[in-house]
Amino acid sequence: MSTVDDAATLAWAAFRDYSRRPGAERAQLLRRIADCIERLGDALIETASRETSLPLARLAGERARTTAQLKLFADLAQEGAWTDERIDPADPSRKPIPKPRVRSAFRPLGPVAVFGASNFPLAFSVAGGDTAAALAVGCTVIVKAHPGHPRTSQLVGDAIRHAMKDLNLPAGVFSLLFETEGDETHELARELVGHPLIKAGAFTGSTRGGLALWRIAQSRPEPIPFFAEMGSVNPVFLFPKALENHGDALATSLHASITGSVGQLCTQPGLIFLVDSGVARALLTRLSDLLEATPPGVMLTPSMLDAYRRALVARGATPGVDSCAQVHEGAGARALLHVTDSKTFILSSELKEEIFGPASLAVLCPSVQDFLSCAESLPGQLTASVYAEPYELDASGELLWTLEQKAGRLIHNGLPTGVEVGTAMMHGGPFPATTDSRFTSVGTRSIFRFVRPVAWQSPT
Amino acid sequence: MSTVDDAATLAWAAFRDYSRRPGAERAQLLRRIADCIERLGDALIETASRETSLPLARLAGERARTTAQLKLFADLAQEGAWTDERIDPADPSRKPIPKPRVRSAFRPLGPVAVFGASNFPLAFSVAGGDTAAALAVGCTVIVKAHPGHPRTSQLVGDAIRHAMKDLNLPAGVFSLLFETEGDETHELARELVGHPLIKAGAFTGSTRGGLALWRIAQSRPEPIPFFAEMGSVNPVFLFPKALENHGDALATSLHASITGSVGQLCTQPGLIFLVDSGVARALLTRLSDLLEATPPGVMLTPSMLDAYRRALVARGATPGVDSCAQVHEGAGARALLHVTDSKTFILSSELKEEIFGPASLAVLCPSVQDFLSCAESLPGQLTASVYAEPYELDASGELLWTLEQKAGRLIHNGLPTGVEVGTAMMHGGPFPATTDSRFTSVGTRSIFRFVRPVAWQSPT
Repeated sequence: MSTVDDAATLAWAAFRDYSRRPGAERAQLLRRIADCIERLGDALIETASRETSLPLARLAGERARTTAQLKLFADLAQEGAWTDERIDPADPSRKPIPKPRVRSAFRPLGPVAVFGASNFPLAFSVAGGDTAAALAVGCTVIVKAHPGHPRTSQLVGDAIRHAMKDLNLPAGVFSLLFETEGDETHELARELVGHPLIKAGAFTGSTRGGLALWRIAQSRPEPIPFFAEMGSVNPVFLFPKALENHGDALATSLHASITGSVGQLCTQPGLIFLVDSGVARALLTRLSDLLEATPPGVMLTPSMLDAYRRALVARGATPGVDSCAQVHEGAGARALLHVTDSKTFILSSELKEEIFGPASLAVLCPSVQDFLSCAESLPGQLTASVYAEPYELDASGELLWTLEQKAGRLIHNGLPTGVEVGTAMMHGGPFPATTDSRFTSVGTRSIFRFVRPVAWQSPT
Repeated sequence: MSTVDDAATLAWAAFRDYSRRPGAERAQLLRRIADCIERLGDALIETASRETSLPLARLAGERARTTAQLKLFADLAQEGAWTDERIDPADPSRKPIPKPRVRSAFRPLGPVAVFGASNFPLAFSVAGGDTAAALAVGCTVIVKAHPGHPRTSQLVGDAIRHAMKDLNLPAGVFSLLFETEGDETHELARELVGHPLIKAGAFTGSTRGGLALWRIAQSRPEPIPFFAEMGSVNPVFLFPKALENHGDALATSLHASITGSVGQLCTQPGLIFLVDSGVARALLTRLSDLLEATPPGVMLTPSMLDAYRRALVARGATPGVDSCAQVHEGAGARALLHVTDSKTFILSSELKEEIFGPASLAVLCPSVQDFLSCAESLPGQLTASVYAEPYELDASGELLWTLEQKAGRLIHNGLPTGVEVGTAMMHGGPFPATTDSRFTSVGTRSIFRFVRPVAWQSPT
């Protein structure tokens, strides 16, 4: 028996019990987990910072988000309307045959495998959104710890187990697995997604990793839903009048959004579309100066820094692309802005790919009309943002409709970073942003990844 | 340019327009389609009967179901609550950063490819549930006509086009494609599912056909959701006291459910579990007599009859399986009951496969406890039925929970045939009944196959 098989067997056994517990008990578990995480105190934040190089303040914010998220899902579990219960009443006198009563409601899928992200050691990891959503609806959970923050994972895993013990829940409600060192083929992850007792999967990370696991989920004897959020370039369209009226504020906001968390956010704005003009060029100069003046950041892992630098060099060498500054050698990741024109952008598939780190690409367009052809050339995105005065928006119906086809979240006069956790949030989008545009991995809508409707029929 | 490419290009162009029409206009289209189908009168029913050998009365019922279904989806489109609009209000004074307003709602995916079923030339074909659901939410539709009923398809397709013309809708809102004769590799179907402008697919039919198209949908450069409903064996569990109290009525109902539409229904009860006893054996004798006395039926196609006979011969030759009667030669499909024991059943994967036609397999169990191990050995199903007195159910929590994991619809004291079209119906189930247990192809819940949430964010 392997570790995975032990965990999956326990998770299935626990699902028999946990899936039938009332919502109030699931809510209690989620709230207790939040308490236990809070009780870990500064040790958690300090460990996470040591493992990820993310600053303490950012991690304290992420912890607050994580516990608030657990409580939001607790409220959902307790309140219960998520089951969308529907009843079509019986009509025994109907001719030619009596009409039966049909009631249906959402029920949990079964044990869920969760693959946490490197860049959110708390909010998208062991007790992150996927785990909270799955536990809220009655699924049991097996998390594969991200190798980038094993100690943080262990601390949070212990907090969850502590909460389960307090409430006398069976061990298989939650398990935490660790890759053995040197598991470069990700054998544990593959085995987990392939296990017959695992009924769904959730992943946040790279396109390569997400697609590999998604393909395993699809090629099992019994395919299972596997939601992978694989990142995005997050185009931002700056309309001329908005730029004219708010240029300085925009440069400051863009700078903060591009460089926050050393650019290691799946909603980082990696593409900025502008209509070429003196104002536009002034904004780019201002933004480039701000980026240039930003101290180099420490990325999550040395290999991510290597990949970031290689991507910048490749982008800088692309014909038709200018760098606003040099790619720096030396320690840390330096923020950098490249500039190209819409014609070059539309024809290049490489320029549409995400660079993970504090870089962005400005695309100068001859006119506002070219925003539409740029948008049409984009692959699926998590977000698309538009800065525009109201009257500029009014004339942009086709652009907005096109962006709606391309992205899960459209932002007016705002930037995509800072994903609110609520009932309305959509953090998903057309492929390759995610594997299925019908679902989100943030907010209460995210539970629909892990539930299926079941109908109960009877004569009366 | 191929036919598929023309149709997909038209469908995408029409989607730009149709996806932005108000719900009332989509409702008007669906109601007008129902009218135009009704106006086809007896010619439609007679054509369908000639092409499928299904009796006129059954087809008249299916037409009523089809038009009622169109009207149900019209009501849904008009009423509008299906979009599940959610708003998280802004809080500009929130610290450290202002909270934006986030609104989200379901929006249509895009052009949908629909593959109709051979056994429902109206309700699961050109203007069937898939088309109605897709049009209701603002998707455009391309139907590939089933080669088993081309003239029926043409009539219904003309009715839809007529309705569209009445309402001045662009041609690409709906297209109907026909395979050329001898397209044995299903080139048209494959091309349709693979086309980049097609954003979702829906299929009702065989496991082989459904899986082949689903795999194409998954291996496209941009994978798309593809829901295939691929049939089911629909186990029925007869508890001893219910059998004792209602044996005769049960034999009559089972006979009708097994042989209706010559057994060519995806909800046909192909498995009957009983506790071995004199009463159980009497029921089987009575049921077998009724089946034996049923006149042979004409199946949808000669190749289906061949497949049915081959499957019966193979089942009869399985060690541990007895036939209650001979497999008849001669014209038509004869109803037939086989009998086996639970031990043989649990160990055999073949006995768990669907036989498409008027056959069923009775499984005699040593005790009620064996129902559970039989249920645990089942693959995913559309339905599972239980005949039991209330006190027999009370002691069967584990069986009911297990059946809930295996099937999309659980029926108490009733049979699975006769799928009600309503707001609560679930016609789906775990693989291999369908490709994704989270969705249904019947009832208003079926729209969720064709929509995705989109969020709009703004500062206030």
